[in-house]
Amino acid sequence: MIKEFEIKTQKKYEMIDVTEKIQKIVSDINEGICLVYVPHATASVIINENYDPNICTDVINFLKEKIPEGKWLHDKVDGNAAAHIKSAILGPSETIPVRDGKLLLGTWQAIMIADWDGPKTRKVIVQVVECT
Amino acid sequence: MIKEFEIKTQKKYEMIDVTEKIQKIVSDINEGICLVYVPHATASVIINENYDPNICTDVINFLKEKIPEGKWLHDKVDGNAAAHIKSAILGPSETIPVRDGKLLLGTWQAIMIADWDGPKTRKVIVQVVECT
Amino acid sequence: MIKEFEIKTQKKYEMIDVTEKIQKIVSDINEGICLVYVPHATASVIINENYDPNICTDVINFLKEKIPEGKWLHDKVDGNAAAHIKSAILGPSETIPVRDGKLLLGTWQAIMIADWDGPKTRKVIVQVVECT
Repeated sequence: MIKEFEIKTQKKYEMIDVTEKIQKIVSDINEGICLVYVPHATASVIINENYDPNICTDVINFLKEKIPEGKWLHDKVDGNAAAHIKSAILGPSETIPVRDGKLLLGTWQAIMIADWDGPKTRKVIVQVVECT
Repeated sequence: MIKEFEIKTQKKYEMIDVTEKIQKIVSDINEGICLVYVPHATASVIINENYDPNICTDVINFLKEKIPEGKWLHDKVDGNAAAHIKSAILGPSETIPVRDGKLLLGTWQAIMIADWDGPKTRKVIVQVVECT
Repeated sequence: MIKEFEIKTQKKYEMIDVTEKIQKIVSDINEGICLVYVPHATASVIINENYDPNICTDVINFLKEKIPEGKWLHDKVDGNAAAHIKSAILGPSETIPVRDGKLLLGTWQAIMIADWDGPKTRKVIVQVVECT
């Protein structure tokens, strides 16, 4: 089963929590794996804490400092090389086990879409492969 | 099929090799994919060499140097922001192909649980989806 | 279904685009997930843009600068610790959704095998688990 939805980011760097949307998609699954995939080369899927939203700010600040804008070869073509490097390293997906209609996330884990080159409309693909 | 087990780390930074435990879980699988997932926001799953354990020390030292403790916003709430950043970047899972009851790991690949905020008891979820 | 093929890298640091090879493997799949896995501890699978090949060069230059050669414990045994650290952080696999015989990659996403310790012959394992 494949479902898709869109999110809209408002800032250049932003993380949007999509845990509830994905939990709804898997609510009828007895057992399976859930792949959350963004078909974008300047965005990522991240699983971490969002109860204290400062953690997202800390992750963004760390990546902004270590992978700065404007000093890369690709910037001559399109000024978003730093976003591509972040996306290449963090990857476009995460995979989560599902049992009894629930994502087996830990207490402090949320699923977030990270935009490194917003504001943009981003597509999220959610695929569930059920165990037989 | 989903199996769970626990490991106990003894140090703040530690990698524990769980390859044999996971190999036992998949030993009856003809063909499938094996998802190794930690439901924690300050731990990670890493696949790399463990024959020379200095590689684990090198990876830990690199991450300690680049993502130092104590300079983050979340540290005001709970002093483990650096562990969250490591976990967000490295991710909570790895996926390995299985055939004829064997993980298709390379000669120099081991599956390790990395704790960035130990000592703690950590849960490991192992899910296998078989090919039909 | 599991298929394997080999690639040969020519340089120490190199990314090779394998998108077309993998697209051919999934061309008869109605719906499923595709795991691309390298059984190596000094290589990685990366999904990002390859239309402007300078992005690959930017990613390589970033990693070379941040994870330099020759200063690690494992270098006393085998002078490739920096390649192991890159591989441990980036991971040995990526997972892509498939529908109607097509990898659901975005317009700017290509699948690349990254070698951090070439030149070498590298094995690529492609596994597809179909949805029933």
